[in-house]
Amino acid sequence: MAPPMELFDDEPTSTREAIMQATYAALAKHGYADLTIQRISDEFNKSKSLLYHHYDSKDALLVDFLGFMLEQMEADVPIQESGNAYDQLMSAFRHAFGELFEEPDFLRAVLELRAQAATDETYRRQFTANEEFIQSKLAEIVRNGIDEGTFRDVDPDRTAEMLLTVIDGAILRQATIDDVDVDVVRQELDAYVRSRLVTDDVEIDA
Amino acid sequence: MAPPMELFDDEPTSTREAIMQATYAALAKHGYADLTIQRISDEFNKSKSLLYHHYDSKDALLVDFLGFMLEQMEADVPIQESGNAYDQLMSAFRHAFGELFEEPDFLRAVLELRAQAATDETYRRQFTANEEFIQSKLAEIVRNGIDEGTFRDVDPDRTAEMLLTVIDGAILRQATIDDVDVDVVRQELDAYVRSRLVTDDVEIDA
Repeated sequence: MAPPMELFDDEPTSTREAIMQATYAALAKHGYADLTIQRISDEFNKSKSLLYHHYDSKDALLVDFLGFMLEQMEADVPIQESGNAYDQLMSAFRHAFGELFEEPDFLRAVLELRAQAATDETYRRQFTANEEFIQSKLAEIVRNGIDEGTFRDVDPDRTAEMLLTVIDGAILRQATIDDVDVDVVRQELDAYVRSRLVTDDVEIDA
Repeated sequence: MAPPMELFDDEPTSTREAIMQATYAALAKHGYADLTIQRISDEFNKSKSLLYHHYDSKDALLVDFLGFMLEQMEADVPIQESGNAYDQLMSAFRHAFGELFEEPDFLRAVLELRAQAATDETYRRQFTANEEFIQSKLAEIVRNGIDEGTFRDVDPDRTAEMLLTVIDGAILRQATIDDVDVDVVRQELDAYVRSRLVTDDVEIDA
C-alpha cells in the first residue's frame, strides 16, 4: 500500500521517523483497536525494547504519531498562488480528498484516532488545533476571493467552517459506511461554491 | 441528563427496554471505551446475571442497543406535511441538530459507536442502513420540492447525500473538537439550500 504522505514514503532519516512509518503501516494493517507494540515493531524488524526505550507506552507512541501525522498534513497543504480563489479552493479540495481517500485503510485508522478525541483531552486538543489550522487556510482563500471580486461578500470564517464540515462529513462517511462515492460530494461541494460564493460576473469552466 | 429520544424517557415496558435505557445512561456517563456490563447493571439496579441471561457478551448487548437506537431515530423522523419543501427541510434539520446536539455526552457515545464501524462489519451494516434511510427521506423532500416548483431541477439523491454529509460532519466535529458552534453550520446549511435549491420565484422569510 502506498502511503498517502510523502514522508511515510521516504527512507527514514531518524529512529523516530522509522517508528512513525512502522506505526503508520501497523495502523493501516490492523486498525486502532488491534494495534499493539508488537505489531508496530514487526513493521520495522526491530525489537520491542527499542520502542519502549523511546516511548513509555503504546498510548504515548500514538500521541506522538498523531502529532507527527497532523504536522505532516499541515506542511503538505498546497500553496497555490496562481489562478483565482475558485481555482485555489478546488485545488485545496483535490488535495484534501486525494490524500486521505485514496487510502481507505489509513482513512479508517485516522477516524479511529479521531474518535478517541471524544473522550481523550490530548487527542482532542491536537485535532482541534489541526481543524483550526485547516479552517484558517480555507478562510484565507475565501477572503482573498472576496477581495479580488471572485467571491460574494460572505463571512470567510463561517464559510470555511461549512467547507471543513463537508470534508469531515465525507471522512466520517467514507470510513464507516459502505458504498460511498466520494466524487458525488466533491461535485456537490463544487456546486455549492459556485452557487453560494462565485459572483455572477466571474466565468468558471463547466 | 435528559435523554434525547422519547423512548429513553418513558417507563420501560419490557426488560429489554429497561436494559436499553440502562445502556444509554451508562454510555452517556462513561463513554464507549469505559463501558462495562457492571456499569450498565449499576444503572438499573439489577444483577449482572440478568444481563448475561439476555446477552452473551457486552458486544452482543451493544449491537442490540445500536439497532434499538437507530430504529428509534428512524421512527422519530418528523413527517411534516404542511408547508413547502423548504419548510420541511428546515424542520428535518431542526430535528437532526436538536436531537443529538443537545446531548453532548450521548453525541460522543454515538460517534464512538460509529467509529467501530470502521472495522466491525455488523456496526458498518447497521450504520449504512441508517444513513440510507435518512438519505432517502431527505431525497424525498428534495424530489417533492422539485415537483412543486420550490426547488431547482437538481439530482435529489446527490443533493440528499450532500445534506447528510454536512450533518455527519457536524456530528464528527461536535463530538471530537472544542468550541464548535453548531448554529454556524445550521445557518450555512440554510444558506446552501437557499442559493443552490430554492428557485428564484419562491419567497423565503429572511
